Amino acid sequence: MSTTEGPIRLGMVGGGRDAFIGGVHRIAARLDGHYALVAGALSSTPEKARASGRDLGLAEDRIYADFEAMAEAEAARPDGIEAVAIVTPNHMHAGPAIAFLKRGVHVICDKPLTATLEDAQALAEAARASDALFVLTHNYTGYPMVRQARAMVAAGAIGRVRVVQVEYPQDWLATALEDTGLKQAGWRTDPARAGAGGATGDIGTHAFNLAAFVTGLRATALCADLDSFVDGRRVDDNAHVLLRYESGAKGALWASQVAHGNENALRLRVYGETGGLEWAQETPNTLRHAPHGEAPRLITRAGPAASPEAARLTRIPAGHPEGYLEGFANIYAEAAAAIRARGTGAPPPAEVAFPGLADGLAGMAFIDACVRSSSAGAVWTELGQA
Amino acid sequence: MSTTEGPIRLGMVGGGRDAFIGGVHRIAARLDGHYALVAGALSSTPEKARASGRDLGLAEDRIYADFEAMAEAEAARPDGIEAVAIVTPNHMHAGPAIAFLKRGVHVICDKPLTATLEDAQALAEAARASDALFVLTHNYTGYPMVRQARAMVAAGAIGRVRVVQVEYPQDWLATALEDTGLKQAGWRTDPARAGAGGATGDIGTHAFNLAAFVTGLRATALCADLDSFVDGRRVDDNAHVLLRYESGAKGALWASQVAHGNENALRLRVYGETGGLEWAQETPNTLRHAPHGEAPRLITRAGPAASPEAARLTRIPAGHPEGYLEGFANIYAEAAAAIRARGTGAPPPAEVAFPGLADGLAGMAFIDACVRSSSAGAVWTELGQA
Amino acid sequence: MSTTEGPIRLGMVGGGRDAFIGGVHRIAARLDGHYALVAGALSSTPEKARASGRDLGLAEDRIYADFEAMAEAEAARPDGIEAVAIVTPNHMHAGPAIAFLKRGVHVICDKPLTATLEDAQALAEAARASDALFVLTHNYTGYPMVRQARAMVAAGAIGRVRVVQVEYPQDWLATALEDTGLKQAGWRTDPARAGAGGATGDIGTHAFNLAAFVTGLRATALCADLDSFVDGRRVDDNAHVLLRYESGAKGALWASQVAHGNENALRLRVYGETGGLEWAQETPNTLRHAPHGEAPRLITRAGPAASPEAARLTRIPAGHPEGYLEGFANIYAEAAAAIRARGTGAPPPAEVAFPGLADGLAGMAFIDACVRSSSAGAVWTELGQA
Amino acid sequence: MSTTEGPIRLGMVGGGRDAFIGGVHRIAARLDGHYALVAGALSSTPEKARASGRDLGLAEDRIYADFEAMAEAEAARPDGIEAVAIVTPNHMHAGPAIAFLKRGVHVICDKPLTATLEDAQALAEAARASDALFVLTHNYTGYPMVRQARAMVAAGAIGRVRVVQVEYPQDWLATALEDTGLKQAGWRTDPARAGAGGATGDIGTHAFNLAAFVTGLRATALCADLDSFVDGRRVDDNAHVLLRYESGAKGALWASQVAHGNENALRLRVYGETGGLEWAQETPNTLRHAPHGEAPRLITRAGPAASPEAARLTRIPAGHPEGYLEGFANIYAEAAAAIRARGTGAPPPAEVAFPGLADGLAGMAFIDACVRSSSAGAVWTELGQA
Repeated sequence: MSTTEGPIRLGMVGGGRDAFIGGVHRIAARLDGHYALVAGALSSTPEKARASGRDLGLAEDRIYADFEAMAEAEAARPDGIEAVAIVTPNHMHAGPAIAFLKRGVHVICDKPLTATLEDAQALAEAARASDALFVLTHNYTGYPMVRQARAMVAAGAIGRVRVVQVEYPQDWLATALEDTGLKQAGWRTDPARAGAGGATGDIGTHAFNLAAFVTGLRATALCADLDSFVDGRRVDDNAHVLLRYESGAKGALWASQVAHGNENALRLRVYGETGGLEWAQETPNTLRHAPHGEAPRLITRAGPAASPEAARLTRIPAGHPEGYLEGFANIYAEAAAAIRARGTGAPPPAEVAFPGLADGLAGMAFIDACVRSSSAGAVWTELGQA
Repeated sequence: MSTTEGPIRLGMVGGGRDAFIGGVHRIAARLDGHYALVAGALSSTPEKARASGRDLGLAEDRIYADFEAMAEAEAARPDGIEAVAIVTPNHMHAGPAIAFLKRGVHVICDKPLTATLEDAQALAEAARASDALFVLTHNYTGYPMVRQARAMVAAGAIGRVRVVQVEYPQDWLATALEDTGLKQAGWRTDPARAGAGGATGDIGTHAFNLAAFVTGLRATALCADLDSFVDGRRVDDNAHVLLRYESGAKGALWASQVAHGNENALRLRVYGETGGLEWAQETPNTLRHAPHGEAPRLITRAGPAASPEAARLTRIPAGHPEGYLEGFANIYAEAAAAIRARGTGAPPPAEVAFPGLADGLAGMAFIDACVRSSSAGAVWTELGQA
Repeated sequence: MSTTEGPIRLGMVGGGRDAFIGGVHRIAARLDGHYALVAGALSSTPEKARASGRDLGLAEDRIYADFEAMAEAEAARPDGIEAVAIVTPNHMHAGPAIAFLKRGVHVICDKPLTATLEDAQALAEAARASDALFVLTHNYTGYPMVRQARAMVAAGAIGRVRVVQVEYPQDWLATALEDTGLKQAGWRTDPARAGAGGATGDIGTHAFNLAAFVTGLRATALCADLDSFVDGRRVDDNAHVLLRYESGAKGALWASQVAHGNENALRLRVYGETGGLEWAQETPNTLRHAPHGEAPRLITRAGPAASPEAARLTRIPAGHPEGYLEGFANIYAEAAAAIRARGTGAPPPAEVAFPGLADGLAGMAFIDACVRSSSAGAVWTELGQA
Repeated sequence: MSTTEGPIRLGMVGGGRDAFIGGVHRIAARLDGHYALVAGALSSTPEKARASGRDLGLAEDRIYADFEAMAEAEAARPDGIEAVAIVTPNHMHAGPAIAFLKRGVHVICDKPLTATLEDAQALAEAARASDALFVLTHNYTGYPMVRQARAMVAAGAIGRVRVVQVEYPQDWLATALEDTGLKQAGWRTDPARAGAGGATGDIGTHAFNLAAFVTGLRATALCADLDSFVDGRRVDDNAHVLLRYESGAKGALWASQVAHGNENALRLRVYGETGGLEWAQETPNTLRHAPHGEAPRLITRAGPAASPEAARLTRIPAGHPEGYLEGFANIYAEAAAAIRARGTGAPPPAEVAFPGLADGLAGMAFIDACVRSSSAGAVWTELGQA
């Protein structure tokens, strides 16, 4: 990927010391050289914001105490940021996103879209009204073999899809980690900051999005049985969800944060009339393809059966594992390509496929339907439009 | 295992030429030398019954044209059969089972119990009224590592169970194989012979039983979404089932016969408060145990962490794989031990754990509840008593 | 497999209480119903011989105190044994084998052929002079996917073979188990009973035979570095061997009994001009085939790409694992087919491929060359003819 | 990792358009933000050097046509480069490395050290005479679980090491790819540019280094059988090597570029008196540890049993795979830490463990001994000092 035009000037909201996902975004932005981080409102605590900015080598006058000040000041600079990464807890997505979209700054926002449907609507309006791009980091869609799976399904390699099995088990919240003061556990189990969904919102949305991304199917209804197995937990930590797709396909989704022995075991299996595909995030460089009546094949990233869609997002030879950060960086690279095309007035490159507003709204509808379904006793519930 | 007392005289109903499961039962019976097959009503077609009996070296006068004749004649012989294996299609389980139970002949019957609830009730009455044993070959419970998993759960190794994930995907019915004249596909997709459940009855009951066997939990309600994806199919070929257990644990069960690239991929995962266990039928010699806060361990059959429950059912050193037939033979070996104890008036050995009538009735209740739930739109349905 | 003609009358030498491999042979003989065990000299201790014979339900007059008596008596009976399984320690193979071969009784003998080259020569002469069959239980050749690998190589599926990697690591002798009184460890580490090779003879010969069986290549020279890592051990417990084949192919063989975490991890990899094949004994139902320039395939036993050679030795559907005992039973089944053909004067069935005298002699030459090479400082040594 | 002090100014020699490893070094340098690439002599073709420099956004006056000019000019600038990455073919390592070391510029050089022993000696002298650091990118040593393995061996977790099995099979050179014009295949199979070793030098040195890095053992002699299986190939494409270590441990190393179905399947297994460790590059986030008499454990990067040595080089939570680029970046990060410590006059941080001159010389001695051993008929050959 050429960087001739120079890196895109990037700001960041959130992601100060102690944060997790902010660091990931920074590496993803840096990995291919498409961005330079030049400004930040990295923490809601001014002191921490300043220290964090200095850690990252930001100029003193571009370390901001809050996102509003940053949006205003950067918009006023001739060398102001062109894009901003929003890596705050969920309830703090909408505010900064709207502030920057209003000013024409491209937004790269962590998922889920927001903590509430109201916020989601407000953000959606702002995004629709803006010329700037809105990118949602459902990062698992950036894995090359996920792209290949999507292309294979679209090309009919497994025929009409019948069954979708997607799961995302973790175990880090198998105990009441939120009571230990751990920051990550704190906000992710706090409905005020995370939203109504716990596992549902944090990882269920990733699973839901991945299934939709690969199959192209639209879910119309679901039946969700949510549980909070850990005493005192205020959000769900296990979600069993049955899905019905518009096409007649059926799905099952399982998201859990109490499944001992699972770290980030996101896994997708799709079965169609003429074949099956299986992919797992923890071994992301392989895609298993079982064509009807033939021995299953192990398609590897950059290997002999890799498709153009996989090859395009691959940096190194087959057998040298790429991982989570490279997949994340692929989203940033595609965003860069789209931003640059926008800058020239050209349409985004045809092959760009990063998730955006529609995916974010679908995720919010998913969380909302899960919570409504489960509250009513795990009854079938239509997926509305967020 | 000592065979000093001489093999148990065994008869067989069904299992003639072209049958599949009959051959499995014969190997299972023969493997440890506990049984001698001496009589059979091997087919409903007299000619085939005769040819099949000769194939197996049966004496001419012990090759029967029907099970009634066999029950009567064998009961009258001083050297008559002590036990009978029933390996017919589901709708032909109850008749022979009742005929032999009435005459005090121990019954080893293939699963599911019967094709209908009515038959199940009749069989249950006969079993309760008989002094003979009734053994149901939910054979996966015979795997040593399944026994170890059960013992570990019972001993609290993973704490109180929270989540049960069990699945049994296959792909052999991904096309309309029943239209090709294949006998196995024919009766298994015919409601008159298989019962109301397709995948649900054929493999779903295995998955349901395995989960209950390992966890000891009792399911009280389920929500089942059954599909027949193959055109013209008269029974379900994909079943998504959510489960609620009496203890508060939750489960998800998936049984499919249209999942390309899966052969007999029965897999159980159980997560408790302090650990997780994972086991897969296609690699049955390993049990993965993830204790909270420690690295997961790979416990192997006959390896350093094998439990007495596993060791008792193990024939060969660790690393030499035992498989499906050995697991099946373990059920037969346990049945032999119980039959011999019964012969001496002693209670069955304490460690014997083969499935029986209660498991069969639970399986029938499962099928029935699945079909009722799905028919009503996949609503939550209580598991009754079959 | 039809047993119309009635089972073959089988005797056994060795295999009394406490023995390991005798029990395996008995199950292998019984599994498909081709044999009936009717006589035995099961132990060199008369009391144990008798008790062991009773355990197995042998008639009192066919429980023998020594193999000579058994050979003589059985030869004199009209219903005398047709075949004998020899399952004694290595130094006790030649004596009984010769005694029975002389009397026209077919011999099924455990590996390696003998403990010494002299014994091997004597046994070879007896075998050549006899009309009876000599079968050597290099049992890993009985696995269906090993048969498929052999057929694929023969058919040119991977082109001319270049490189052979074969290994057989275990860990059970990582400590001085022979000092604990464990019978298996005792004789297997005693040069007087096991022969000059330790790991080399016990498992190295299996690995060497498997490579030859699959590739059809003849090794001409080797360079062996043997070690006894455990203090006081009198035979090698780790063997590194480089191999040169007549065809120009090269190989590496590793056999170890001190490789912690390995149980019976026999594994073969063969690479040719146009493809590669990989197979592992602990997951024996899968054969990995990597054709040049294509995605690797997972060929499963009884699955869609299984060859006739695999299918012929398969009892149950794909995905239901067969294991060590079934592979072992395949050798017994093939021996039965050959014995029956011999009985009718017909040639053995064309597809029969059990190992025999030539394989045994090749194994002895392998052990001998390894010991000579290593003693001389691990120099290249020609493989003679044993 | 803090970047407060601002990135280290980095130059690059080699790595222009069409190169492979140059891009890897650039990502590795960029990933953690420790370096800024500001100068380059990216190709020996001036036009390509210029175009490549522009691709990377270098200032026009810092795009050089050759490394000598670059060394001179950069040394003269107040803002001249502090470190240089040398990513040319092997025969072009020594020249630039010496030029920059002489001028006090830290050198990060790709492996193997050089193409010839003479060059290696010259480079060694220059490195010893210089105050600058010399870092050799045996990048596999940068994987966190490799670090943990090393720490565990050092701490006695598996006891005294007995056996080392290391292998690096690939398949990309299974055909005469060098005849197709592919640049990578061209120079890597040309003795003038790659050196005397083919697979031996390109990947065998990685395997050899990895084994030494993890075990801390010093190899004293080897026996190497090298082959060129592809017609017309001028260097070895398959290497079988037996190793003897000073401690009495034994090893086997296999490097192959003709092993169909293997991409970059570097794998290390180490067995000691009380346990075993296994690690594979294609699934680098897991380390298998088998303690004597216990079930093997799967230690994961950032999981519950990760050691401080692994944790220090980990960026993201367990289960999110890190890969080749992160391992490579760890070498760059450690080099940065050492460079910064050098800048302050402090010793390098105690935990820094990147490979350097000694490893490079050991690799050269390995290649040399392999070639000499094999030329003489695969005889045992002492490993000299390069």
